[in-house]
Amino acid sequence: MNPLDALRRVYAGRLLTDPAETAPFLTDWRGKWTGRALAVAQPDTTEQVAALVRWCHEHRVPVVPQGGNTGLSGGATPDETGAALLLSLRRLRRVREVDPLNNTMTVEAGLTLLDAQQAALAAGRLFPLSLAAEGSCTIGGNLATNAGGVQVLRHGNARELCLGLEVVTAEGEIWSGLRGLRKDNTGYDLRDLYIGSEGTLGVITAAVLKLVPPPAAQVAAFVAVASPADAVALLQRAQAALGSRLTACELLSDTCLRMVERHMPACRTPLAQRSPWYVLIELSEPRDEADAMAALEALLADAMDAGLLQDAAMSTSLAQFEALWALREHISEAQGAEGRTIKHDIALPISRLAEFIATTDAAIAARWPDLRLVTFGHLGDGNLHFNVSPPADRCGPAGSADAAWFLAHEADLNRLVHDAVAERGGSISAEHGLGVLRRDEAARYKSPVEQALQRTVKQALDPLGIMNPGKVM
Amino acid sequence: MNPLDALRRVYAGRLLTDPAETAPFLTDWRGKWTGRALAVAQPDTTEQVAALVRWCHEHRVPVVPQGGNTGLSGGATPDETGAALLLSLRRLRRVREVDPLNNTMTVEAGLTLLDAQQAALAAGRLFPLSLAAEGSCTIGGNLATNAGGVQVLRHGNARELCLGLEVVTAEGEIWSGLRGLRKDNTGYDLRDLYIGSEGTLGVITAAVLKLVPPPAAQVAAFVAVASPADAVALLQRAQAALGSRLTACELLSDTCLRMVERHMPACRTPLAQRSPWYVLIELSEPRDEADAMAALEALLADAMDAGLLQDAAMSTSLAQFEALWALREHISEAQGAEGRTIKHDIALPISRLAEFIATTDAAIAARWPDLRLVTFGHLGDGNLHFNVSPPADRCGPAGSADAAWFLAHEADLNRLVHDAVAERGGSISAEHGLGVLRRDEAARYKSPVEQALQRTVKQALDPLGIMNPGKVM
Repeated sequence: MNPLDALRRVYAGRLLTDPAETAPFLTDWRGKWTGRALAVAQPDTTEQVAALVRWCHEHRVPVVPQGGNTGLSGGATPDETGAALLLSLRRLRRVREVDPLNNTMTVEAGLTLLDAQQAALAAGRLFPLSLAAEGSCTIGGNLATNAGGVQVLRHGNARELCLGLEVVTAEGEIWSGLRGLRKDNTGYDLRDLYIGSEGTLGVITAAVLKLVPPPAAQVAAFVAVASPADAVALLQRAQAALGSRLTACELLSDTCLRMVERHMPACRTPLAQRSPWYVLIELSEPRDEADAMAALEALLADAMDAGLLQDAAMSTSLAQFEALWALREHISEAQGAEGRTIKHDIALPISRLAEFIATTDAAIAARWPDLRLVTFGHLGDGNLHFNVSPPADRCGPAGSADAAWFLAHEADLNRLVHDAVAERGGSISAEHGLGVLRRDEAARYKSPVEQALQRTVKQALDPLGIMNPGKVM
Repeated sequence: MNPLDALRRVYAGRLLTDPAETAPFLTDWRGKWTGRALAVAQPDTTEQVAALVRWCHEHRVPVVPQGGNTGLSGGATPDETGAALLLSLRRLRRVREVDPLNNTMTVEAGLTLLDAQQAALAAGRLFPLSLAAEGSCTIGGNLATNAGGVQVLRHGNARELCLGLEVVTAEGEIWSGLRGLRKDNTGYDLRDLYIGSEGTLGVITAAVLKLVPPPAAQVAAFVAVASPADAVALLQRAQAALGSRLTACELLSDTCLRMVERHMPACRTPLAQRSPWYVLIELSEPRDEADAMAALEALLADAMDAGLLQDAAMSTSLAQFEALWALREHISEAQGAEGRTIKHDIALPISRLAEFIATTDAAIAARWPDLRLVTFGHLGDGNLHFNVSPPADRCGPAGSADAAWFLAHEADLNRLVHDAVAERGGSISAEHGLGVLRRDEAARYKSPVEQALQRTVKQALDPLGIMNPGKVM
């Protein structure tokens, strides 16, 4: 029997095979990876997911789970053999339960992050995961990749925002671990094993998410600092003075800011003078805006006295708050408008961050004097998007000679940056996952013992190797 | 060759075999479990731990890791066969590094929690894990059991306070995962697999712990409430009004308070009238005490207006702060002075907590009208110590007819309580782990799929079954 006919006998739901319909699932949104698939299945229920995976298990057909297809590491694109079933979770999108008293919400994997945020708000709660792709990325993808974003400093990564999971195992069984508990010490932590495993151990179909009471007021300050070292010193003061009311602390260079101003006419620095670096500080306050303003003003005055800041602008309205955030949020888009981008999503101990930037910037400048460093990121988490752009006069589009010249340096540049990260005890994938993009590089930096443990886990939970093969390991 | 002679050839360190020396390691501190061992090894370094475990692996000798021997579930006591090597981690007690700028500290497994707290304080930081046994429990034990305590509401369990681990695997290899990073998405989460595994997958030898800036001020309020439902409503208001400045929210019944007052002459209620239930609220404030007092006063006034509280006392000095906490902290000790104790360390969704107490109290009273319910715990985490004492006139000591009569009901009582917990999506071991105490009961409440996954993990990481056999599973 034709395999699709056989599949139809166990799964009566949507199964796309028309190339016009499957194409959007087979290329990542940046167009960096394209694969093929036996078909694209769009189940509506966990039971359908289980039936599909059971069939794949029985017939040794690879399964590639996919959420919003917004990943940056190629983790949700099948390979070119066409052997795999692409399993889209987007139709599993119910909010199963919101429990405001327990500060939890049970949702299915295909719900978009934005819809999850809105379901929480409708119940008077905040789901504090926030990232650029939130309109289209899904909760399942967020958990499979342990997504980060701009609120990690206060609320943690996706991992810390999840209390329970429902998973279809590699054998097509349903593990119902949808517990809404803050404490549960009854065995091995299966939840955290599936979170961040990028679909290579099983398929996340639903999750219990943590909610928090929404803040009454939020204010932001855009602060000019002389150097990353001063930015780190400012972070220290902010943490001491504000405690957990400090909900974001982002770093960006003047190169980033100028790119945003060049491509987004509505975005303008609020400061009179340029500075090589800026910090965006966000403060959230449970009671009222006056408290928030006073606390932020006091922090800025202290930092000014300590010689840590050159100039600062504070938001006094929601519009200003959003305008300050726009300077940070549009960097990726602005950078994309200036030719190809080489991205490094790295994490470092915060104590090594300033020295890392100084040393690595100098090493890159010595070898590639014309490249532009577009450095920004989540200072409070030690997570930098240490990106690189071609020179301003060599910004040709994909496929151009400029692009080919630039990308010819990618492997050497990655090696330089990632070696420097590894020497300082850092991570070469802070929040984007390994996918296929960083799979082989990760192996370079992991000890043999750690690699063996990783293989042992994979072999134990997916003995046939059908779950998202070629990703992570 | 005698096995101890063979062991000596690979390990030249302290190896106790004299029964007088080994006895303290072979009985838990409450005297509930006693076992035997081949010997007690006290290695000084991770390399010595690895050599010991390699030898055990080679000779299929069971390994029972032990920290401060303060557990409540028998997880660190060997069985009675005498086949196992007891591996005491207490001599691995170095603080390897404190990095205040990164807010991390790298310490060895045998360091006591109190020493870890003090090392953090010496660097101007707080390590916010706090529990009754902190003077003698160890960081390794805290992580192996994912300890909880009184600051979980704000800072999370031991799991959330650990960024990286060093582990000796079941094969005696050293996994160096001592990363001090807030973000790292480069493969499966081995760290969280070892945390909470109670020494059944490997031996934790060192950890990178998260630190936070210490608060400038702390105040507490002792609040009389009419019922657990009102306590939960008060918690809601406190979370909304104080955000993460709410650092503890504890519940206790008047039965608990009377026991404390009876046995601790220095402990007295600060309130003029009795109430069936009380809540202890702690607020921590990064800037100053006046802010903290004002915020707590405002909360209490709101709650009074809403009819949620009968009376309240606020601390206005450190001595008063400590006196209010003493009422909560001495409950276990006071209960222990009134005969045997049957403990239930349970967690529930907070939305089910009040109904659970009402229903379960009634069910117990109907069947055992004379038993005393000594209910207290971490309200903000949904974690109750749902303890039971014999009637006041049947408090004979261990071994007495009273004690025998009381303990004859233990299995039935556990079944009643834990069935009620399971029906409400709760956990039968919130923070104490399974050890041997709750091992078989846990199997009763886990689905076959979950049990199979747990066995798969155990089999993969400890294929010979030498790591702490008979515990957890």
